[in-house]
Amino acid sequence: MDASIITIGDELLIGQTIDTNSAWIARHLNELGINVKRRVAVGDTADAIKAALDNEITESGIILVTGGLGPTSDDITKPLLCEYFGGKMVVNEKVLNHVKDIFTKRNRPFLERNLRQAEVPDNCQVLHNRMGTAPGMMFGKDGKIIVAMPGVPFEMMAIMEDHVLPLLRNKFTGYYIVHRSILTVGQGESFIAEKIVDIEENLPEYIKLAYLPSVGMVKLRLTGSGENETQLIQEIEYWQNTLSERLGNIVLAKEDIPIEQVIGRALLEKGRTVSFAESCTGGYLSHLMTQIPGASNYFKGSVVSYLIEVKENVLGVSYQTLEELGAVSEPVAIQMVEGVRKVLNTDYSLSVTGVLGPGVDDGRNPVGTVWIAVSDGNTTVAKDFRFFYDRIRNKEMTATMAMLMLWKFINNQL
Amino acid sequence: MDASIITIGDELLIGQTIDTNSAWIARHLNELGINVKRRVAVGDTADAIKAALDNEITESGIILVTGGLGPTSDDITKPLLCEYFGGKMVVNEKVLNHVKDIFTKRNRPFLERNLRQAEVPDNCQVLHNRMGTAPGMMFGKDGKIIVAMPGVPFEMMAIMEDHVLPLLRNKFTGYYIVHRSILTVGQGESFIAEKIVDIEENLPEYIKLAYLPSVGMVKLRLTGSGENETQLIQEIEYWQNTLSERLGNIVLAKEDIPIEQVIGRALLEKGRTVSFAESCTGGYLSHLMTQIPGASNYFKGSVVSYLIEVKENVLGVSYQTLEELGAVSEPVAIQMVEGVRKVLNTDYSLSVTGVLGPGVDDGRNPVGTVWIAVSDGNTTVAKDFRFFYDRIRNKEMTATMAMLMLWKFINNQL
Repeated sequence: MDASIITIGDELLIGQTIDTNSAWIARHLNELGINVKRRVAVGDTADAIKAALDNEITESGIILVTGGLGPTSDDITKPLLCEYFGGKMVVNEKVLNHVKDIFTKRNRPFLERNLRQAEVPDNCQVLHNRMGTAPGMMFGKDGKIIVAMPGVPFEMMAIMEDHVLPLLRNKFTGYYIVHRSILTVGQGESFIAEKIVDIEENLPEYIKLAYLPSVGMVKLRLTGSGENETQLIQEIEYWQNTLSERLGNIVLAKEDIPIEQVIGRALLEKGRTVSFAESCTGGYLSHLMTQIPGASNYFKGSVVSYLIEVKENVLGVSYQTLEELGAVSEPVAIQMVEGVRKVLNTDYSLSVTGVLGPGVDDGRNPVGTVWIAVSDGNTTVAKDFRFFYDRIRNKEMTATMAMLMLWKFINNQL
Repeated sequence: MDASIITIGDELLIGQTIDTNSAWIARHLNELGINVKRRVAVGDTADAIKAALDNEITESGIILVTGGLGPTSDDITKPLLCEYFGGKMVVNEKVLNHVKDIFTKRNRPFLERNLRQAEVPDNCQVLHNRMGTAPGMMFGKDGKIIVAMPGVPFEMMAIMEDHVLPLLRNKFTGYYIVHRSILTVGQGESFIAEKIVDIEENLPEYIKLAYLPSVGMVKLRLTGSGENETQLIQEIEYWQNTLSERLGNIVLAKEDIPIEQVIGRALLEKGRTVSFAESCTGGYLSHLMTQIPGASNYFKGSVVSYLIEVKENVLGVSYQTLEELGAVSEPVAIQMVEGVRKVLNTDYSLSVTGVLGPGVDDGRNPVGTVWIAVSDGNTTVAKDFRFFYDRIRNKEMTATMAMLMLWKFINNQL
């Protein structure tokens, strides 16, 4: 069974909002064996929405629509769908009570226009929205299922989890899509492709291999589909193992997980802790580390020493070194990493100091210069890097390189 | 002139990758007065790509395609486009030298398969990719422009900046799209809509108003289009001012900027500094703050006190308080905020301590409980919050609420 996702909203077409809903929906449909064939984003105009519906209804059996269901004048999806499927708008008492209830709880006046939020097409099944005022709506046409949901991510997720996914799970069983990933580090995709060329050629046609390169890493993804789930999982894991063995020590993990989670597992296994001293990354490394549930078992904390005086006063970096060499230098990175290890009392530590742009700081180093250091008390290693992108991307590159360096250090590969 | 964006890659349809390219492209086309009509994402199959091309070529004059240009077998866009536009593949010497050059610089062996990267359709204009090996390609058909670029974001951006945007700028002048935003805080979209209903009704038809609600805030966006840019800007700013005046003190900024930038400007104006003590947000607040260029003028740094002993040893939170009340309590938030202000020597400080889930920590507080405190040395204010989502969303909600609280405190509105 194929599905299409239609996202509605001018904010998606002028680049003001990044569409995260589609990825979430796609992942959850995949788990049910439903293949997302197309994703389309259109603006808040009736013609564009109708054209998208016309087209996707011919392409797919399931059409999930998000956006345009709010109480303001730019929200036109609801009356449009009503007309499109030939119904008329009626006030739904259950929705009305729910909307009034929400306004009472939030201590906000219930306005005339909020009444509109309780109006729904009489030809749809209303899907209760426990996270907000706008209900979801399910329409049927020629055996196809069309569901409209609000664009606010957690409202969409609630409606999907409460209604849409259970319904699809019941309706479409017996077909499975399985993904398995391999995370590799330090080699380009051509090199990897060359190394596994014979394995790739022998893959059965119902298992696809994809290469997803990113900074310093390449993710390999195997995707298989079929009717026997157990057999499919066995088979795809066989190929995952075969590929991993061939690729050897460039394999970071046999899962699609972020590197900070790989590091977390390694630390947990060894019963060790880590702390960070962040200058130019400004808390980003710590943020990534604490995105993983259970991080408090190995991550004690960090000092974001954005200004020089914090490096000196909190981390104990020597004033003389800072004065002579500037904040972006090997000795400062080393003193930072050794300082934070002591101050936060951890087994390992990681430090980063650099100039990410657009400004050049004290002018001693070109924009993009970064020093990264790791330490375990006995050994301290520092390396310099140079990145050539903008501030935001340089920060991301620095974070990836720092995490890679920490991972290698913990695994004695540095 | 309308444009369509086609993004190619199974990773977009299974939800493994979030599409950030489209937003970037859309923003930059908008600046040239080019309206993005549709965005479509399709998988790595010839049929899906051809169907998308067929459809978008009838809809728009400019079609920008990203993805599927790498050297591995799942990258099928290049030969497909060649065939679609009736050309044949030829080795391009300039591209070949560039690819070889990149491999030499990166100290990687040049493989047979990398030769393929230098093959291009003979019926396209080759667009040099200074950031990577896969060149962009521009095709023409029935007066329409079709450009294919790699999906790696910074490679796509380089090709857009070097070739596509300058070309479009030359070709399509005389039509302008202008956006202006108003950032509001603390009121829902229905309330705002009601308050400005008469102004909204009087907007000329070539100026559209959109409501973009998010956590605790609503962004209003005015979008106008026309041939006289100066007049259009004047007019749209007139409406922006009219709306802002009506909305009064719920207006945070008359720009679409993040709240951390609003805070940064306020601090800069007052010549004041700030520091953070982060527990459950784990560095996220500091990360947001340092995303803004020039943050070092007002943000000194922070202590990410993820574990209790860091709260005690670095921030000076009393052991007795931690023992008696647990880390998620009003006194701890207050001691953290006062501690970090002293340790980092700043005018203002902000602290956050909470339990975001999925685990319940010490079990004293339900998941989602968060204490936030702000201080300027004379006054310290602490408030408790309760969030009901998952770990990641609770972190984002906490960050928004903390920033709002800091902003109100700085502006004497708390």
